[in-house]
Amino acid sequence: MKIKVLGSGAGGGLPQWNCNAINSRDARQGHEFVKPRSQSSIAVSANDKDWLLLNASPDIRQQIFDNKELHPHEDGPVRNSPIQAVMLTNADVDHITGLLCLREGHAFNIYASDRVMSTLNTNSIFSVLNKEKVHRHTISQNEPFDVTGAEGSLGLKVTTFNVPGKIALFLEDASDSKNFGSSEGDTIGVNVEDIATGKNFYYIPGCAELDAPLKERLIGADLLFFDGTLFTNNEMLDQGLLPKTGERMGHMNMSADNGSLAAFKDLNITQKIYIHINNSNPVLRDNSPERKQVEDAGWQVSYDGMEVNL
Amino acid sequence: MKIKVLGSGAGGGLPQWNCNAINSRDARQGHEFVKPRSQSSIAVSANDKDWLLLNASPDIRQQIFDNKELHPHEDGPVRNSPIQAVMLTNADVDHITGLLCLREGHAFNIYASDRVMSTLNTNSIFSVLNKEKVHRHTISQNEPFDVTGAEGSLGLKVTTFNVPGKIALFLEDASDSKNFGSSEGDTIGVNVEDIATGKNFYYIPGCAELDAPLKERLIGADLLFFDGTLFTNNEMLDQGLLPKTGERMGHMNMSADNGSLAAFKDLNITQKIYIHINNSNPVLRDNSPERKQVEDAGWQVSYDGMEVNL
Repeated sequence: MKIKVLGSGAGGGLPQWNCNAINSRDARQGHEFVKPRSQSSIAVSANDKDWLLLNASPDIRQQIFDNKELHPHEDGPVRNSPIQAVMLTNADVDHITGLLCLREGHAFNIYASDRVMSTLNTNSIFSVLNKEKVHRHTISQNEPFDVTGAEGSLGLKVTTFNVPGKIALFLEDASDSKNFGSSEGDTIGVNVEDIATGKNFYYIPGCAELDAPLKERLIGADLLFFDGTLFTNNEMLDQGLLPKTGERMGHMNMSADNGSLAAFKDLNITQKIYIHINNSNPVLRDNSPERKQVEDAGWQVSYDGMEVNL
Repeated sequence: MKIKVLGSGAGGGLPQWNCNAINSRDARQGHEFVKPRSQSSIAVSANDKDWLLLNASPDIRQQIFDNKELHPHEDGPVRNSPIQAVMLTNADVDHITGLLCLREGHAFNIYASDRVMSTLNTNSIFSVLNKEKVHRHTISQNEPFDVTGAEGSLGLKVTTFNVPGKIALFLEDASDSKNFGSSEGDTIGVNVEDIATGKNFYYIPGCAELDAPLKERLIGADLLFFDGTLFTNNEMLDQGLLPKTGERMGHMNMSADNGSLAAFKDLNITQKIYIHINNSNPVLRDNSPERKQVEDAGWQVSYDGMEVNL
């Protein structure tokens, strides 16, 4: 099974369009230690031919251009794409907008929870994807399914599960001051298994808390991609970027006592990779002490174009 | 007044994600005479500081990155952008999706016809733009208005007018076999005037026909950006890309007897520039006979990053 990181950044990527803080400014200027990052998404293939995308970021057109694996086959018909399926983990703009770029009559399957699918169904703009060709499959948590494309199985089995999280920003219900209208299925984690080998990994780009059921599930995993949005809970407040904590945004941070560095310490996970990393996060600087700290703790910081084989 | 072409391509850009036809294939491989193009949008400024965007393409994040004029001011606050307003000419996915990338609390104004604005209002995903900061102005055709940003006038006056065209694909009404539910305001043309100098130009990226009122309006114009989608009406059919003519898509072509090359021949327009050029169009090849033909007829073929001063 091959996994390509199409985008390693959180919403807005790096640089973020209207951000004048140090990371965005340096990335914009081509700083040696601060590489640009597009918005989070990975591609997975069991046969190096047919690909499943986990989330469809607004940067998908550039991401396809940048990754040869996702180019049309040159010996194929005039319209063709190796992209056979897209699985959505929530309805965030940075995870669903890329669907709008997958037009032009290509047949593929979309998988999402009922909560996320209802967002696609109630926003008419997504009907630019012809439903006769692009099938929408509502999937239930904890019910494994074989991922298929128009030409059959991709050889991948997916299991989704609820993780602590928050409803997409644009769907928030202000009258619910605690959870903002969030409910089960708004944020899910994904396990992807290569059916032929049984090897499998976890993709959890958004997560508010490592609770007991999630901890239990992840113990001993071979590979985990995990929410790397913030290094500290108050990071965006401190940098003057947003008057919200990580907690309020539905993201656990890396460094707190209950942060991901501490929480995953003894779970015996072979390969731990941060993804969905916000432009404010100091680990985005290749030479920062924070980067050293997470690497010393056994984590990798993903980057656009990173390839992982399992 | 300065005009930057952010994107010169039609929907999907060049290369188009799932297209294996010659132009997309060559652009993907870095062909010397077939340059990549992002999706159509231009930026306009009267003071070289505050910018109006005409349409917001799905490629807007990369377009901002590629054009220094649209970077945050380095001596400004931690959040800032020179983008002060966005004017939409229709509700096509390739013209409105970029709005979803202009998040993060920046204050700006959106201008659109009632038909286009109702699409934003009925698709909840666009409420990711906080209405308290991003104001939606419904404008009426043939009623000039001063473009403003959060900090006041941009020194630009805009007049919109109906042009023959078609409703956005995802809003088509199949029961209307002639017009697909299209009505006035679905496709508009724009005149932008530098208030200080009186200089002005036209932006018409989609147009089905040069009818008498439009012809009358454009006679003697200094500068026109015009729909360059197709060279021939059957081009996409012939290349096996889409079972639709240009006519069916609401785009007049370049080469027919009633095409734009013939229709604009005697209108005495000083500078004529094709934009919104589809990946199938042979004028995208710098060395093609069709490129020579349009240039010999006094047209320019726009490219990403092109700058025009007026």
